[in-house]
Amino acid sequence: MAAKPHFSGIIAPVLTPFGEDGAPDPDRFIDHAEWLMANGCTALAPFGTTSEANSLGLDERMELLEDLIDAGLDPTLMMPGTGACSITDAAILTQHAVDVGCGGVLMLPPFYYKNPSEEGLFRFYADVIDEVGDDRLKVYLYHIPPVAQVGIPLPLIGRLRKEFPNIVVGLKDSSGDWSNMKAILDAYPGFELFPGAELYLLDGLRAGAVGTISATANISAAAMRKIYDNWQGPDADRMQADVSAMRKTIQSYPMMPLLKAVIAHYRGDPGWAELRPPFTAMPEADAKAAIQTLADLHGFKLEFGAEA
Amino acid sequence: MAAKPHFSGIIAPVLTPFGEDGAPDPDRFIDHAEWLMANGCTALAPFGTTSEANSLGLDERMELLEDLIDAGLDPTLMMPGTGACSITDAAILTQHAVDVGCGGVLMLPPFYYKNPSEEGLFRFYADVIDEVGDDRLKVYLYHIPPVAQVGIPLPLIGRLRKEFPNIVVGLKDSSGDWSNMKAILDAYPGFELFPGAELYLLDGLRAGAVGTISATANISAAAMRKIYDNWQGPDADRMQADVSAMRKTIQSYPMMPLLKAVIAHYRGDPGWAELRPPFTAMPEADAKAAIQTLADLHGFKLEFGAEA
Repeated sequence: MAAKPHFSGIIAPVLTPFGEDGAPDPDRFIDHAEWLMANGCTALAPFGTTSEANSLGLDERMELLEDLIDAGLDPTLMMPGTGACSITDAAILTQHAVDVGCGGVLMLPPFYYKNPSEEGLFRFYADVIDEVGDDRLKVYLYHIPPVAQVGIPLPLIGRLRKEFPNIVVGLKDSSGDWSNMKAILDAYPGFELFPGAELYLLDGLRAGAVGTISATANISAAAMRKIYDNWQGPDADRMQADVSAMRKTIQSYPMMPLLKAVIAHYRGDPGWAELRPPFTAMPEADAKAAIQTLADLHGFKLEFGAEA
Repeated sequence: MAAKPHFSGIIAPVLTPFGEDGAPDPDRFIDHAEWLMANGCTALAPFGTTSEANSLGLDERMELLEDLIDAGLDPTLMMPGTGACSITDAAILTQHAVDVGCGGVLMLPPFYYKNPSEEGLFRFYADVIDEVGDDRLKVYLYHIPPVAQVGIPLPLIGRLRKEFPNIVVGLKDSSGDWSNMKAILDAYPGFELFPGAELYLLDGLRAGAVGTISATANISAAAMRKIYDNWQGPDADRMQADVSAMRKTIQSYPMMPLLKAVIAHYRGDPGWAELRPPFTAMPEADAKAAIQTLADLHGFKLEFGAEA
């Protein structure tokens, strides 16, 4: 029988709101994290791709993580992104996450230099893990070739699991390639695989995945959670079809600008829609039309009245 | 008549040597920088792509820059790389470079999120420049689509020059695409263009470029300097042909591992050959064969006896 996974369920890469001065806004950030945990999420992955993490400075990332914990959110249910192009900075972020009690970290490969060798990637991860040197560390590899360009090849997972069996425990697969997810599940039973989009949630669960870490969980974790809680039930396929249909509508728009526009709209807080360069907010009319489309096609709306 | 450029000539993106502990080695770094300035370079670009800058931490980059200056190297002849994915970190590095007196900075666009809009890139650079808020700042844009994937589109140069005429003064073009370099030279007279490889040195100078910033200047700046100093002379084409032939041999090997192996060999200092993950050093036999090929085909060797 498989051991209980360290993380499972519906995890949101928490959006990072900004204030009028362009700095991250900790109050909005905490509110959003609390709302996510009260509305479908089983855990949080702050500082993912969707969080604009790579548009944040090192210090900003560490301060925001402490803000969440100081506000009372449970760090054991957090898997912050701690990847960086350099071993040095990745180790600083990872050490910090372990020090503040995070249950895991989601770690990009070094993504500036392209076509690294498998040996080079292995040494990168091994050096970060050795530098942190802490058995509490649980690493989730982050495979997102459409953005990072540098991916996590299948054999690398095996090498890292063999070398660090109690540390390298899972992977987020944002390749959008089901055959890659299936190959990982087949090759490494017990490895905690999270498809990077809810499109693969039900198929993933049936094949041994443990949940999903998905951008859209920022606005629709509740619907995903119903699938996760009832995946062996009679309605699972119908629920998945609905969730997939909405995902497809959402991803026909620029993802992060739309998610922020949706929250800004339903919170009645226009400042929420801001992004940091190189991203720009959706033009207001486009956002309005997209929000209307989501409501018309999928009956989608959000309620923020009854916060936890 | 055109104003004197802020930088010109042969500029090396200074290789970063590491010690046995994997940390950058300031002594080897300073020695190499001094040797470069005594052997053909007109200026230095520490923390470029070839410097493994993106494999260094923020603090390491700032400390190494101070090491060079403390050793007596002239900061006005330095154009350190200060790009980062976030405005926050790019501003920290850029502010530091200005504070220690650097003559310019070489700034990558934010390179994690792909296909940014021109507006988003404009705001990124504008925000970094505004954050630093110092008229001494001279920015060289860094166009290297083969690595960063995110490039500097031609119209963006025009917008930034218009908004910051005394700050955004030049560009390093590592596209390997002469038609792009020519388009920049034609569109923006007086803009300080550096082809990112000496293959384009003579053609560049004839078309208005001001020199080259090239990886291989770490081992062969002297030959490039002869072209730069005599580009209107009768031997220029012959010298360029020789330099181009050697460049083509060099780039048939993994660039940074080879450059470090060459220096390790001629300095009799094997530790020089180390790179940081995700890069790995060339196997010793491969390095030996490559160094022999360079000697046989191009009469190439280095002398470190008579340092300045």
